[in-house]
Parts: sequence; structure tokens; C-alpha cells
Amino acid sequence: MIRPDMATMLAFIATDARVSQRQLQSILESAAERSFNCITVDGDTSTNDSLILAATGAGPEATRQDLGALEEAVTDVARGLAQAIVRDGEGATKFVTVRVERGRSREECRKVAYAIAHSPLVKTAFFASDPNLGRILAAIGNTGVDIGKLSLYLDETLVATGSGRHVDYREEQGVAAMKKPEFTVRAVLNRGSAEATVWTCDFSYDYVKINAEYRT
Amino acid sequence: MIRPDMATMLAFIATDARVSQRQLQSILESAAERSFNCITVDGDTSTNDSLILAATGAGPEATRQDLGALEEAVTDVARGLAQAIVRDGEGATKFVTVRVERGRSREECRKVAYAIAHSPLVKTAFFASDPNLGRILAAIGNTGVDIGKLSLYLDETLVATGSGRHVDYREEQGVAAMKKPEFTVRAVLNRGSAEATVWTCDFSYDYVKINAEYRT
Repeated sequence: MIRPDMATMLAFIATDARVSQRQLQSILESAAERSFNCITVDGDTSTNDSLILAATGAGPEATRQDLGALEEAVTDVARGLAQAIVRDGEGATKFVTVRVERGRSREECRKVAYAIAHSPLVKTAFFASDPNLGRILAAIGNTGVDIGKLSLYLDETLVATGSGRHVDYREEQGVAAMKKPEFTVRAVLNRGSAEATVWTCDFSYDYVKINAEYRT
Repeated sequence: MIRPDMATMLAFIATDARVSQRQLQSILESAAERSFNCITVDGDTSTNDSLILAATGAGPEATRQDLGALEEAVTDVARGLAQAIVRDGEGATKFVTVRVERGRSREECRKVAYAIAHSPLVKTAFFASDPNLGRILAAIGNTGVDIGKLSLYLDETLVATGSGRHVDYREEQGVAAMKKPEFTVRAVLNRGSAEATVWTCDFSYDYVKINAEYRT
């Protein structure tokens, strides 16, 4: 049951920086948006996720430049914590980065990324290290987003375009990418300049075992 | 990979009724809306589902009353075929009717029904015969639909309301309902007069096995 929507995951980050509550809130929201709000195990949102950022103020007064550096540092920590949740997902054997680029809007990119990340068929293919391009293309197509100009990559290999499997692609390349414990599915929509990244895991026998046996 | 959106499932229904192409199309759309478009195994829409209705015209001219009867008959056949797909879903051990009543609109009711039917956590609980009310309530709540006046039933037993587990409910009742090969989850929203029904199945080890081993 993991797909935070900043709604049972509790995360605490602390800094000695001396920054205002308002600045801290802005940093926190930005960091959450690029970390915890970019992960999903199964699409089921848990009910009381929290991310808390505290600053002791023990350090020197933060300059504007410091604030930028602090935001990046907090985001890095938050992203590491968020990704650890995915790696620890029920029965997870693979850590998959789903990156959608050149969409019309960030919302569109996130919709496509989550469609891939939530598809049970795609997730069981991840588990099997099966480069089943049809399942990924179908998941993208189901969003209704135009995939006429799509370029689909498994790690650095161009595997398919909107018109089907790429002529130079050999399945061994796809299998090699997907056999790794971590790989990237990258969908370039070629219809805009927005992008989004979602981190997810595969769907294994142990996902069913853990969630069928666990009682609340 | 089964959640028809009348887009690899091919269904053919034939009748000897003598009706016009226009009347037949109307009957077909009505029947599809109440059968094939109400089932889901895993939310992954297959890519070339088709439902074809043919009339030989060998029978006598259909009266207006006949048309109503024909629509019901075609819908019954279509529903039987559609439900057979769910019963035959990858690794399915349970056939579950998800019924949502008294919503504001049919669209809202379908959204809630599919939220329950697509939740991997709910589906693994179905497999385990585990009346995990929190998972069902969380799936409904994730839709954003107000569940303040909700009444949730497992078959005929009122198990929970918007404020939590019902005081008279004993877990043995929920387990008894869910151990059956077929049962109904009924969510009464008490905020309107619309309703919708979706038929689905559970998520078992064999779902993962079948979809991880199957290669296209």
C-alpha cells in the first residue's frame, strides 16, 4: 500500500539551517513534489503519510543562495528516502525509473508515467525481465495521449516508436536491460517540453503473498 | 489484460429477429454498456476487443415491444459472456460483483466501483478471503468522493459506514462472505440516485505466474 499522496509513511528531515517557517514550507513542498510524490508501489495510497521538515536554526542566517542549496539538499535526502520505500516495496525485485519527456504538460507526463507504473501487466513483465513492448505501449495508449511521435527507450536503447518496434532493436537488448535490478523506461512524447519521473517496482509472487497474508 | 473498452476479445451474438441496422446498433450499445463495459480483471485494456451483433432477419418483423424484449435478451447473453471472461481471468479464484448505489451520477458510481475493482490491495484481500475493510474504504476514499454517508456491505451484511466499522458487524460474517467463490461488495453512497455495477476477480499467485511467464 504505497503511493504517497502526502496523506502510513512518516518521514522526518532536520537541518541546522536558520530559515523562516515560510521558507522551510516552500522548500518542503518543492522537495516532496520531486521525491515522495513521485513514487508508487501499487497505486494504493496509504492513509497517513507525513513528511516533516524541522530546522533548529542553530546555524548562521541563510542567504538566498543558501536557500537554493538547502532546497536541493533537502530534495536529495527526501528522494533517497522515497526511493528506499520503493526498493522496500512488498515483494519488489526491481527498481524501475519511469521517465516521460517532451509532453505537453507535467500533468500529462505524470499521467503517462503512472499508467506505466501502475499497469499490473507491465509490472509482472518487469518481474519476468520480459521486454514486452506491447504492454508498455498499451499502457501509454490507454491514457488517450497521442503517441504518434513517441520514442520508447529501455535504458539507452530505442526499442519502439509510435509506429511499432524499432527496426534496429534486438530483443536481447531489452532482456539485458530488464534483467538488471535497476533500469529506466523512458517515453519521449515529442509533443511539448514538459517532463516527469516516477519511481516504481515490479509485481512478484511475493507481492501477492505479503498482501494476502498480512492482516490488519 | 482484460478490461474491455470496446476496443483482443471478440464476441459474436446473432439473432433471427427482423430489425433495422439502426435499431440493432442501439440494442448493441445498450447491451455492451451493461455487460462488456462493466468488467475488469486488472484494468489493462486489451487492444482489439470487439462485440458484433448480427440479425438474419429470418423471423417476423419486430414490434416496438419486441425490441425491448430483444434488448434485454441480447444484454443477458452479453452479460453472461462478459462475466465468463472475468471467471476465466488470469489466476482468478473469486468472482466479485462490485455494486455502487445512490451516487450523484453513473460516472461517479463507476469511478468508485473501478477504484475498488482495480486496487491490488483489495484484490489480494479477495484472494485471501480477508475482509480488510480498511483497504476497501481507502480505495473508495482515494476517488475523492465524499463517503460521509457511506454504507458498505459484504453480501447482505452491513460492515462499515463512513465513520468506520459497523457496531453489529462481526468479522466471521465478512470471512464467511468472502470465502465463497462469488460474493458482492456493495457501497451505498447515499448522495444521489445513480448506480453502477462492475464485475471483477481477485489477484492470486497465478495472476503473476501467468502474466510473468506468458510471452507475446
